[in-house]
Amino acid sequence: MNLQPLDDRVLVEPIDEEEKVGSLVIPDTAKEKPMMGIVKAIGYDFKLKQGKPLKELMKVGDKVLFGKYAGQEIKISGKKHLIIEREHLLAVVK
Amino acid sequence: MNLQPLDDRVLVEPIDEEEKVGSLVIPDTAKEKPMMGIVKAIGYDFKLKQGKPLKELMKVGDKVLFGKYAGQEIKISGKKHLIIEREHLLAVVK
Amino acid sequence: MNLQPLDDRVLVEPIDEEEKVGSLVIPDTAKEKPMMGIVKAIGYDFKLKQGKPLKELMKVGDKVLFGKYAGQEIKISGKKHLIIEREHLLAVVK
Amino acid sequence: MNLQPLDDRVLVEPIDEEEKVGSLVIPDTAKEKPMMGIVKAIGYDFKLKQGKPLKELMKVGDKVLFGKYAGQEIKISGKKHLIIEREHLLAVVK
Amino acid sequence: MNLQPLDDRVLVEPIDEEEKVGSLVIPDTAKEKPMMGIVKAIGYDFKLKQGKPLKELMKVGDKVLFGKYAGQEIKISGKKHLIIEREHLLAVVK
Amino acid sequence: MNLQPLDDRVLVEPIDEEEKVGSLVIPDTAKEKPMMGIVKAIGYDFKLKQGKPLKELMKVGDKVLFGKYAGQEIKISGKKHLIIEREHLLAVVK
Amino acid sequence: MNLQPLDDRVLVEPIDEEEKVGSLVIPDTAKEKPMMGIVKAIGYDFKLKQGKPLKELMKVGDKVLFGKYAGQEIKISGKKHLIIEREHLLAVVK
Repeated sequence: MNLQPLDDRVLVEPIDEEEKVGSLVIPDTAKEKPMMGIVKAIGYDFKLKQGKPLKELMKVGDKVLFGKYAGQEIKISGKKHLIIEREHLLAVVK
Repeated sequence: MNLQPLDDRVLVEPIDEEEKVGSLVIPDTAKEKPMMGIVKAIGYDFKLKQGKPLKELMKVGDKVLFGKYAGQEIKISGKKHLIIEREHLLAVVK
Repeated sequence: MNLQPLDDRVLVEPIDEEEKVGSLVIPDTAKEKPMMGIVKAIGYDFKLKQGKPLKELMKVGDKVLFGKYAGQEIKISGKKHLIIEREHLLAVVK
Repeated sequence: MNLQPLDDRVLVEPIDEEEKVGSLVIPDTAKEKPMMGIVKAIGYDFKLKQGKPLKELMKVGDKVLFGKYAGQEIKISGKKHLIIEREHLLAVVK
Repeated sequence: MNLQPLDDRVLVEPIDEEEKVGSLVIPDTAKEKPMMGIVKAIGYDFKLKQGKPLKELMKVGDKVLFGKYAGQEIKISGKKHLIIEREHLLAVVK
Repeated sequence: MNLQPLDDRVLVEPIDEEEKVGSLVIPDTAKEKPMMGIVKAIGYDFKLKQGKPLKELMKVGDKVLFGKYAGQEIKISGKKHLIIEREHLLAVVK
Repeated sequence: MNLQPLDDRVLVEPIDEEEKVGSLVIPDTAKEKPMMGIVKAIGYDFKLKQGKPLKELMKVGDKVLFGKYAGQEIKISGKKHLIIEREHLLAVVK
């Protein structure tokens, strides 16, 4: 099975537990705390004019931070995934 | 009978029951759960500037995911169909 | 009498009764059900950048689907007509 | 006295009574019924990019249809006139 | 003292009493009645793309019509003036 | 200490008392009365397309008028300053 | 650990206490008082058309002012950080 996100969207498998990635922690106390996930598939660029294409900014397997209410939920092989629009992706963890 | 969607719209026949497409499941528990359907007709691009044309991203017969409240309902030969705007199409299932 | 719609508008004579056009039916049960009508006059393109001009997408006499609350009503020779903006035209029935 | 409308505006003298122009009637029953008027002066184009200039679409003396709440009212020689923005002009009656 | 309006703004001295300019009258009964004033200074164009520059449309001393709630009020030599944005200027009286 | 405003912003030291600059007075009675201040630093242009760059319109030391609720307040050497976006600057007093 | 902000965002470590940077003070009394922080990482430009790229306006280690409710909070090595969008960055302190 293969899912190809459309128009500036990225398929992400969220990491639910409070993860430590090196020294990075997303605190539970933050009201609008961002979430972290692993990039599973990257869509084609749609609104891109001057910036970098999505595939230059991240690749499958990268960890990304995204806004708490971002994305639409689906299940793949029993695991929760999110289809997230580029504007809700905040940063790549390297 | 032939229906030609206009301006970045796609005609989709939704799949109502909870479908398993390979390992993909859209969970009932998700509040804003996306829906799945089969592409029946593809409109002409209207707002396209830098992205790919609709017809490069999908073809008739492809399965697509779309937002729950997307589209306008019509019936063709007794079967429910939706005319959906591109911005509400989330991903192509391949 | 001749009515020339302005700026991406189309003059449409709606078909009131539940029409069967081949196998197409617009169900009464759909909350935001689209309506069908016959194109009577086509305006000049105004916002067009990359898409097709209105006159390449439809011609006078074509049947079109449009959103339920689209258009402004006038009467021509006693028959109800609507002046509809392009963005509310959903599909051409062929 | 001469009034030069600015930036995509048109000066229109509305026709108040229910006019028959050939076979065209604007019904009183329509909630958002458009109104009809005579073009008295045409402004310079401001937002025009791909469409036709105002002066190619209409000329002084033409009858036009416009939205019910369109325009700002002034009086010229005791007669009510409206300064109407292009986006509220629906069609030219020919 | 000299006031240079910025970015598509015009300095206007409003004419308070109900003025007759030739045969033009702004009726008191109009709810959103436009007002009239004399152009005192003209700003530099900012958003202009296809239209005419402000200084081609009007010159200092011209009478202009503008929307009732347009502009920000200041006093110059004891006289009320308004700094008005171009989008609220309706017409030049010639 | 040096403060470089970003993206079409200007650093302004407001003049609190009712100043007379030549014959210019901002009346207390005006509800949305503009305020006056002295330009202290000018940011780089960001959205500029056709207009004049900020640094051609004003220079450090100029007096400017701006909307009453414009800007974000900071203190420099004990004196109130505002960081104001270009769209809220109304005029340069010369 | 390395965090690469996306699309016009900047990673900032806020300075919580009322800092004096030379003579600059952000007063507690201001309702919408801006905050100060140290730039830790700079994203790639996304919407940039005519302005300066983020990396020409600031560099890692610079102090910046930003709006009070700007940014999304994360913790790095136990220290609060914010991922802030360019539009909420007000000025660079030099």
